[in-house]
Amino acid sequence: MAKKDFKQVQDIGFKSLIETFKDYTGSSRENVIKGIGDDASVSKQENGKVTCTSSEIFMEGVHFDLTYTPFQHLGYKVVTAAVSDIIAMNAEPEQILIDVAIPNKYSVQMIEQLYQGIDAAGKDYNVMVTGGDTTASHQILAISVTCIGSADKESVIYRNGAKKGDIICVTGELGSAIAGLRILLREKKSWQENPEQQFQPDLASYEHVVQRQLLPKARLDLYETLKKSEVKPHALIDLTQGLVADLTEVLKQSGVGAEIYSPAVPISLEARNVADEMNEDVDKYAFYGGEDFEMLFTLPEPLVEKFKADFDDFIVIGRVTDAEKQLTVNTGEEHNYQIDL
Amino acid sequence: MAKKDFKQVQDIGFKSLIETFKDYTGSSRENVIKGIGDDASVSKQENGKVTCTSSEIFMEGVHFDLTYTPFQHLGYKVVTAAVSDIIAMNAEPEQILIDVAIPNKYSVQMIEQLYQGIDAAGKDYNVMVTGGDTTASHQILAISVTCIGSADKESVIYRNGAKKGDIICVTGELGSAIAGLRILLREKKSWQENPEQQFQPDLASYEHVVQRQLLPKARLDLYETLKKSEVKPHALIDLTQGLVADLTEVLKQSGVGAEIYSPAVPISLEARNVADEMNEDVDKYAFYGGEDFEMLFTLPEPLVEKFKADFDDFIVIGRVTDAEKQLTVNTGEEHNYQIDL
Repeated sequence: MAKKDFKQVQDIGFKSLIETFKDYTGSSRENVIKGIGDDASVSKQENGKVTCTSSEIFMEGVHFDLTYTPFQHLGYKVVTAAVSDIIAMNAEPEQILIDVAIPNKYSVQMIEQLYQGIDAAGKDYNVMVTGGDTTASHQILAISVTCIGSADKESVIYRNGAKKGDIICVTGELGSAIAGLRILLREKKSWQENPEQQFQPDLASYEHVVQRQLLPKARLDLYETLKKSEVKPHALIDLTQGLVADLTEVLKQSGVGAEIYSPAVPISLEARNVADEMNEDVDKYAFYGGEDFEMLFTLPEPLVEKFKADFDDFIVIGRVTDAEKQLTVNTGEEHNYQIDL
Repeated sequence: MAKKDFKQVQDIGFKSLIETFKDYTGSSRENVIKGIGDDASVSKQENGKVTCTSSEIFMEGVHFDLTYTPFQHLGYKVVTAAVSDIIAMNAEPEQILIDVAIPNKYSVQMIEQLYQGIDAAGKDYNVMVTGGDTTASHQILAISVTCIGSADKESVIYRNGAKKGDIICVTGELGSAIAGLRILLREKKSWQENPEQQFQPDLASYEHVVQRQLLPKARLDLYETLKKSEVKPHALIDLTQGLVADLTEVLKQSGVGAEIYSPAVPISLEARNVADEMNEDVDKYAFYGGEDFEMLFTLPEPLVEKFKADFDDFIVIGRVTDAEKQLTVNTGEEHNYQIDL
């Protein structure tokens, strides 16, 4: 094989890699309304309902680090991630299938804790574990979670529905999960440099951010409120890659741009403290940190106040514009900037 | 932690491990007819239809070996495995979600070949790839496949329906996949012992068995025939763990026993030749070798001839008995034996 033919995955990155094989999707099925490209796929049932499906894989050493992640939390978190994708379609999560590939070295107790975490999340989110696979692995633990949900066809909210003039809203607060990760990695490093001490760092003052990293919750409450509310957002996505990456997805798919007011982006005091301690920019945490599992949605302006009456845990961070504006960040000071989509 | 508390997974095996956490299934959902315990889960839609779902994970070094597995074949095979589980419910496979975790060292071309194999299988089985995840992995490739299908509620065939007196039938032939694996492993060993030679073994005379190992086909034809036929088997399972293991599942879940006539078990000439060459017992290949992806079903005796007129690629291998008989193997000679369920 000529050298030039051998491009490693790292040479082109996952985004280009996915682009390479985006057309390898087997046979088209006429009941599929949405395949790859949103938080979940959507397919018609025969009764006006749709089924939404999403799947994600978590690899030890890449997506989680067992040095500081309790197995119960890990089990809970993978379910959170899967459920969050279904909520991000404005659908009700109903079932999960869990595949777990386990290295022999782990104890039965550890794996039982993993399943206890899965079970606890299933109960919290009212989803049932209906299947999956438990099998062997060499060296590393791998977990794949598929979540299946349902919705009325007209209730589903896609990433591509944002309209010029819409108000951009986010639930909860952003950047705490990455702040928690920064602390955990610092403690891990300190422990690796002084291995004689037990790995029992004093994390009390970081409890909030560490909790947001290790045990995030999916915003089922937003789904439940939307179900009762007369408000339907134009676009909806869960914040797992980071605000900029996820908002960019919405803007590109909707063919629009946006202006966001960075001082409005909700950031916890605890995340600010971590950033200060690390000499880092907390806005970067909020803009580029992932795994907050909060929701971003866009609403026509007149509906914002109306929805606020139903659901108060969200904040307006900006507005949808023409595509030409790309993603403009208004800092409230002089140095506004634009991020190309 | 006391030493006795630390049991490794290998100490108890996967069967006991799964037993340990079988109750960790989150919330019960009333539309779920069958959760864990069959080839796929089954849940009611609102229109008399059901959705069937199954998920499986494949880990490099455990479930596949890239020394001798072309990426295209691997992609095809994981889809075959997932589709086969849905067919084993007598449901129509419709969608697959594929999670792939990829080490950086692999080339883009390799991964594209993997997806080409997935795509080809999707087209052959008329299923659409509607989602999944492509992400990084350290060291080993991991692939998880979820398949979703549908059926009329009354068409679904479970493992637990076998009835005393039923005739036990299997499609195609058994043991070739393991025979192919034996050959591939022998060639790999020979190559490892003489690494200076290229790994290009002459497999022409083993083509059939190697093909059965690397590129097995799911029995969609059985599903399609059953759909048109008036015959409905009492129990149905796909043969992936091996005849004894899979039949045992059916017998245990149905609360019955069985007598099988080992000379009737269909074995290819090519598998026999491999067993002879290896000085091994070809019946062991057929009884304990997995991954044939054939189907086992049980039929009331009067329906066997009727169904033979519709579908001729199956053979009668035995009969369902009282539970007391366990799994009795009638060898046609003196040394009959019983396998405890």
